[in-house]
Amino acid sequence: MPSQYPAPATPPPRYSFLDDYSEGAHPALLKAIISTNNTQEAGYGGDAYSALARAHIRRHLGDPASPVGIFFVPSGTSANAISIAACLRPHEAVVAASSGHIVTRETGAVEASGHKIINVAPRDGKLTPETIQRAVDDNWHFPHMAKPRLVYVSDATEIGTVYTRAEMRAIKRVCEANNLLLFLDGARIGTALTSTANDMALRDVLELTDIFWIGGTKNGALLGEAVVVKDARLAGEFEFYVKQHGSLLAKSRIMGAQFAELFREDLYFDLARQANLCAATLSGGIAAAGFGVYAVTETNQVFAVLPLGLIKMLQEHFVFYVWEKRGDDEAVVRLLTTWATEAGEVDKFVGLVQGWGK
Amino acid sequence: MPSQYPAPATPPPRYSFLDDYSEGAHPALLKAIISTNNTQEAGYGGDAYSALARAHIRRHLGDPASPVGIFFVPSGTSANAISIAACLRPHEAVVAASSGHIVTRETGAVEASGHKIINVAPRDGKLTPETIQRAVDDNWHFPHMAKPRLVYVSDATEIGTVYTRAEMRAIKRVCEANNLLLFLDGARIGTALTSTANDMALRDVLELTDIFWIGGTKNGALLGEAVVVKDARLAGEFEFYVKQHGSLLAKSRIMGAQFAELFREDLYFDLARQANLCAATLSGGIAAAGFGVYAVTETNQVFAVLPLGLIKMLQEHFVFYVWEKRGDDEAVVRLLTTWATEAGEVDKFVGLVQGWGK
Amino acid sequence: MPSQYPAPATPPPRYSFLDDYSEGAHPALLKAIISTNNTQEAGYGGDAYSALARAHIRRHLGDPASPVGIFFVPSGTSANAISIAACLRPHEAVVAASSGHIVTRETGAVEASGHKIINVAPRDGKLTPETIQRAVDDNWHFPHMAKPRLVYVSDATEIGTVYTRAEMRAIKRVCEANNLLLFLDGARIGTALTSTANDMALRDVLELTDIFWIGGTKNGALLGEAVVVKDARLAGEFEFYVKQHGSLLAKSRIMGAQFAELFREDLYFDLARQANLCAATLSGGIAAAGFGVYAVTETNQVFAVLPLGLIKMLQEHFVFYVWEKRGDDEAVVRLLTTWATEAGEVDKFVGLVQGWGK
Amino acid sequence: MPSQYPAPATPPPRYSFLDDYSEGAHPALLKAIISTNNTQEAGYGGDAYSALARAHIRRHLGDPASPVGIFFVPSGTSANAISIAACLRPHEAVVAASSGHIVTRETGAVEASGHKIINVAPRDGKLTPETIQRAVDDNWHFPHMAKPRLVYVSDATEIGTVYTRAEMRAIKRVCEANNLLLFLDGARIGTALTSTANDMALRDVLELTDIFWIGGTKNGALLGEAVVVKDARLAGEFEFYVKQHGSLLAKSRIMGAQFAELFREDLYFDLARQANLCAATLSGGIAAAGFGVYAVTETNQVFAVLPLGLIKMLQEHFVFYVWEKRGDDEAVVRLLTTWATEAGEVDKFVGLVQGWGK
Repeated sequence: MPSQYPAPATPPPRYSFLDDYSEGAHPALLKAIISTNNTQEAGYGGDAYSALARAHIRRHLGDPASPVGIFFVPSGTSANAISIAACLRPHEAVVAASSGHIVTRETGAVEASGHKIINVAPRDGKLTPETIQRAVDDNWHFPHMAKPRLVYVSDATEIGTVYTRAEMRAIKRVCEANNLLLFLDGARIGTALTSTANDMALRDVLELTDIFWIGGTKNGALLGEAVVVKDARLAGEFEFYVKQHGSLLAKSRIMGAQFAELFREDLYFDLARQANLCAATLSGGIAAAGFGVYAVTETNQVFAVLPLGLIKMLQEHFVFYVWEKRGDDEAVVRLLTTWATEAGEVDKFVGLVQGWGK
Repeated sequence: MPSQYPAPATPPPRYSFLDDYSEGAHPALLKAIISTNNTQEAGYGGDAYSALARAHIRRHLGDPASPVGIFFVPSGTSANAISIAACLRPHEAVVAASSGHIVTRETGAVEASGHKIINVAPRDGKLTPETIQRAVDDNWHFPHMAKPRLVYVSDATEIGTVYTRAEMRAIKRVCEANNLLLFLDGARIGTALTSTANDMALRDVLELTDIFWIGGTKNGALLGEAVVVKDARLAGEFEFYVKQHGSLLAKSRIMGAQFAELFREDLYFDLARQANLCAATLSGGIAAAGFGVYAVTETNQVFAVLPLGLIKMLQEHFVFYVWEKRGDDEAVVRLLTTWATEAGEVDKFVGLVQGWGK
Repeated sequence: MPSQYPAPATPPPRYSFLDDYSEGAHPALLKAIISTNNTQEAGYGGDAYSALARAHIRRHLGDPASPVGIFFVPSGTSANAISIAACLRPHEAVVAASSGHIVTRETGAVEASGHKIINVAPRDGKLTPETIQRAVDDNWHFPHMAKPRLVYVSDATEIGTVYTRAEMRAIKRVCEANNLLLFLDGARIGTALTSTANDMALRDVLELTDIFWIGGTKNGALLGEAVVVKDARLAGEFEFYVKQHGSLLAKSRIMGAQFAELFREDLYFDLARQANLCAATLSGGIAAAGFGVYAVTETNQVFAVLPLGLIKMLQEHFVFYVWEKRGDDEAVVRLLTTWATEAGEVDKFVGLVQGWGK
Repeated sequence: MPSQYPAPATPPPRYSFLDDYSEGAHPALLKAIISTNNTQEAGYGGDAYSALARAHIRRHLGDPASPVGIFFVPSGTSANAISIAACLRPHEAVVAASSGHIVTRETGAVEASGHKIINVAPRDGKLTPETIQRAVDDNWHFPHMAKPRLVYVSDATEIGTVYTRAEMRAIKRVCEANNLLLFLDGARIGTALTSTANDMALRDVLELTDIFWIGGTKNGALLGEAVVVKDARLAGEFEFYVKQHGSLLAKSRIMGAQFAELFREDLYFDLARQANLCAATLSGGIAAAGFGVYAVTETNQVFAVLPLGLIKMLQEHFVFYVWEKRGDDEAVVRLLTTWATEAGEVDKFVGLVQGWGK
């Protein structure tokens, strides 16, 4: 009997390392969605599963009775835009790395809510206390300049590097010294916190930031990010912003059920660890073949510098980004892995790289 | 074996007629989500299931090769805010009924994107050519007034009434005469188009509007609304707006798979018809008991005028909105039904109403 | 010798009662501008004349050492839009009469800064405690509704009526009871405070509002409005908003010198009183001729109900607004007076009215 | 008899080269304001003097019958913010030098109207075809990136350099090739077009841009900038934007009379030439003393690299910006001149520099 859900007419024949949202949900999350489908629930975040998810996340944050607000929104762009709009007065600006997601991949959503982003050159994809202080020092000519008020970092960064606790502490200190809020984009916080280069737990992130979010979409969920808001007054009015941005889902259980499952025990971190392992295998295999990297592989993103001929051959079998050209003969490619990445495809990729030219 | 997904500790003991998003997804849509979970798909609307959904919807619109743009967004508020922001220049305004969803239930999302809403008193929940023309005539003092440019209607309306084809044609004519775009909020377009008071098909809606959307959330889906954009230039840039508003989901299959199933055949309309039937039973039973209505029951919303004592008794068994007081002894209550409404609960409700005072 | 500044080729032959900004500046203000032209001054509000103007205004506010912030902006629309944007968080709304200037004559400037205006039906052009409370009561469905946070009134109102101290006190009380800020648009505060119907002084306005402005443009100045901000924190950042809205003039002396002269002694009020006298003469003369009024003449706006034939005849000699039709034979006309209105033209107008039909 | 307009209590004892808006208006403009004070005029741009100013400017643009729109606004920030908001759709971005006024000195006014600015490193303060093309090439990842749509240049630039006709032509070509509008900030277009390094006339600027403005504030006027809009449709709705931004002055004659005088003959350019001459004298004198420059002196801005000791001594007599430190012993200072700069003060400054260390 033919399936009633036909596969696309011409299925992509090549395995994709293009991004970390090519697959659907982890089976346990799908099962949670199914199991919770039949009850009547309050909407707009008032459902029992969202409450359960908040309880589990609070436990992971180190305090089941924590008064922080936790809000589920459908996308990373909405998490960033809402958080930033909620924190700032109209004349206040965000300090961010020029490579930051809000600068380069969100269609000006932050500016669309009225706020300037002050660009800072990243170092290994990161902000540093020095670059933040420099941004503050360069933006002093009040009232002719927007006032720096919030620092945006992402962990892992856009190139897959992670912040150490010491780095975050130093950033927090410079923020406090300059009356700046610290906001962490956690689209890939799972792979960051399970990186071998990491020494933070979720509770450290809570301690060292003012507001941050835990990405579901890129780590097992079909959709959903959980924004954690420390300030009680801001948390008290946060739902207004979520609603005004069109991100308060009526059937909020869809996000609640998934996050409840991700944080019931340690699934969220198990999935991320698995993604990191695949990336390490890819990265290690490529390095063993003698090729360099553009950024050290600390999480689930591999940036390798490969000859154009090898890239062309690999593209016959795989889909991935060619990030940027390097001279006439090489380019940087980006490979993304997830909890769903197939080990066989990783081995095949490494095999092709290592066999190149032989 | 105990389920690993515990039901909420204290399940609501009362059946809810509060809204049309208390339940999860229709089982066929859940099955579609599961069936499509295992492939790798392009993200951000590029997946095969979104393509399939678009094809099915185009067929329902009467032209499989229709060049209209179709875009999936996660919520009604995002559908409205994005559509309106996409259609207007900064100085242009929306004309809407003062009871319209964008006026009363979206936390100022339209204004947040910079646009004034010109309020018009509704008649039976609807706009009319006369009230639209009056709004245009009253807003002429340029450049000191925002320029009316788009008319917002919803079908069904906020009180459950539906537009006839003749009414929509008359509205379209007054729009064309005044260089106004016509936008239809279709959060409940399913129940509207299957109402016994309706004489339009989906293709009529396409013909008679410039942009409209088909609501999934309130008619079987876990989330998702499909915005249909006729103007080619606007359709060409519409994804920018979806993205900028944080509504371009990475794993767009979640909406694509559900809409593909809703419109593969006629499930979308079958579900709506079922909701309407439940409402008719409720409305008819209440009328038979001698109670009046606040608005005629044309779709899945029942507005009944009941004695306060009866309301209090009903509240012991059911959850529903007390819409507004009527004198000292009565109030208007609102009852919502869906495809998932249980016939036994409808009968129980009617029985209690009819038994009141006996 | 021909003037090098030619009069317009076809000078308007008819005297204008169209508005209260048809004339240039009062001669004393022109003289102040000339006298202050030759010094080097700090810009952007830092000039000595703006400082002097602030000192004079503080004295009129009853406390030369008052810590209120005073900021000069070039137009009423900028005064309103900046003040409202400065007071509100993104999800907060303004309550205003549907006849209010921000609703009907500012091209959606408030909405352009992201905020909803909740419309209230005016009584004699005014808000009342009851209508404000009703607006609050109707906008409770959080977070689905924008939160009422600021009440906008204007004194004089759009139809020239004035608030008594008792009325303002009652409004202030309902604001305090509902955590609402009170903002007063003082485009015509001069004519209001010198009205025979008035019992407030400038210091009462300061006491009974949170933020208000003193209109220069419509009372003797070439341009400029003085926004008075009570809250210290808001005053501390107000210049950012002025600048961001493009309203921080480099040569701020142009407004400073004029306001210094207006408030050095009592010129501001003398000019307004003169405007009111002309309006009273017009109004009294029209009433003596047996014609009715649309709104009582309390300030410098006269709304008279005249036969269409008389209106047509008057239009041969004068320019004024035909405000709205009244049945088939009459219309409401609006006549505006200022400090510069010529007594002879007033007499001529009254004479024509009184001679009509004789 | 003591003046009734007292000078500030403690007049600044030091002559200012701080900026080009420290002085009032040129006497001829003051005279124009006075001469036009006594007529009744239509407001909001409809006055006879604004019409006259438009006619004179059109003549200077090379075509008295030119259909371009010309709009007067009170400040440079309003001219920039309004022009950019008027040109762009919500998802479109501006390309600008990171040193541009809209980036560094306008409190995020462009972002406040919702638009991203894509920063480009300047060369001699300017954009080049290469840097513009690079910005376009780097911002291709649609719909995830805001779409480059408008290029912002200023002539003279923030460091006083000017564009040649060949440079502007090359920029215009790259704009046309990439479907970009070209917008020129002319806050200092007077000094630019009278620079010895310049080979453009006003009509060239019209030809080579899509929209630009002529700065009055920094070249003789008390306030006012004239925005020239080529596109007929945009010009047709431009007043809406001016009004919505609070920049449509009621007594528009204040700007009309000044611009009519500036462009009646060649006063605008005469004043600018005078400012440039003073700057050349300063620059030449400093160079003759053996000190270097940070940027070549092409207009009315002098950027000199001076020893800290000399700077300290000069600060006893003059006010000017210390732009940035250079190593331990030097700093860049910025000196601004205008039509009103006193030759004696220039000579005194040069004398002190040349006498330093002797």
